[in-house]
Amino acid sequence: MAGSGSGTPCASCKLLRRRCTSECVFAPYFPAEEAQRFAMVHRVFGASNVSKMLLDVPPPQRPDAVSSLVYEANARMRDPVYGCVAAISFLQQQVSQLQMQLALANAETAALQLQLQQQHQDQDEHHQQQCILENAAAHHQLMLQEAFLKKESMWT
Amino acid sequence: MAGSGSGTPCASCKLLRRRCTSECVFAPYFPAEEAQRFAMVHRVFGASNVSKMLLDVPPPQRPDAVSSLVYEANARMRDPVYGCVAAISFLQQQVSQLQMQLALANAETAALQLQLQQQHQDQDEHHQQQCILENAAAHHQLMLQEAFLKKESMWT
Repeated sequence: MAGSGSGTPCASCKLLRRRCTSECVFAPYFPAEEAQRFAMVHRVFGASNVSKMLLDVPPPQRPDAVSSLVYEANARMRDPVYGCVAAISFLQQQVSQLQMQLALANAETAALQLQLQQQHQDQDEHHQQQCILENAAAHHQLMLQEAFLKKESMWT
Repeated sequence: MAGSGSGTPCASCKLLRRRCTSECVFAPYFPAEEAQRFAMVHRVFGASNVSKMLLDVPPPQRPDAVSSLVYEANARMRDPVYGCVAAISFLQQQVSQLQMQLALANAETAALQLQLQQQHQDQDEHHQQQCILENAAAHHQLMLQEAFLKKESMWT
């Protein structure tokens, strides 16, 4: 009986030309129609190592383990020198750049907040001075009017 | 002759119990004293696959290829389910968070700049109105003084 349950051997057993039993560790993750997916993992890690790695992981986590192995194998095929370490390197650079941009943006925000606060204070001080001047002017005008009326009343 | 040139077989040939020749592809990268480093790569990728992968890469790039394979193997040993894909996943999340924080910081900066600009305009308008009022008050006071002097001169 084929482990993939479809009557045909799984992608792994097909490639390795062996009988696919119900105990086949690959069958649930590499069905016959996904021959390329298994071939890639086999080329990078080797079927024997993949089998050992899968058996070391509890069954509920095996789909994730297979996905990550396929991802790594795919990256290694695309980039034989750096594999998926290229993605790590790129992402680390992106994180550094973003952290720098964020620090600059935060510094700009802080500077603007300070500028705004300073302007509020200046405006308050200006308003207070204006009030003092206005009061003094009004007082002066009042005195002048009083003097005028006094003079006027003296002659009328 | 040992490929590592030190008279002792390289870490790979020692582990695989074979004669280390001058053509040994592993010898330059896995000296005898780094047995653990080779054992890890062998366990994850298999010596045969590592050998094939190294031979597929031009010699000047082989040290980088070895480093990335060691990094991946190390990550897989620490995390049998996700391997170094865990680092990619973590970094991708970090990039997303930083991009969100940066967008927020930029929006805050833009809002503060607008607020500051608005305050400048308000201040200018207030200053203009103040000038008009001050001129009017000064004019009124002048008229009053003139009237006072006129009255005074009429009686003196």
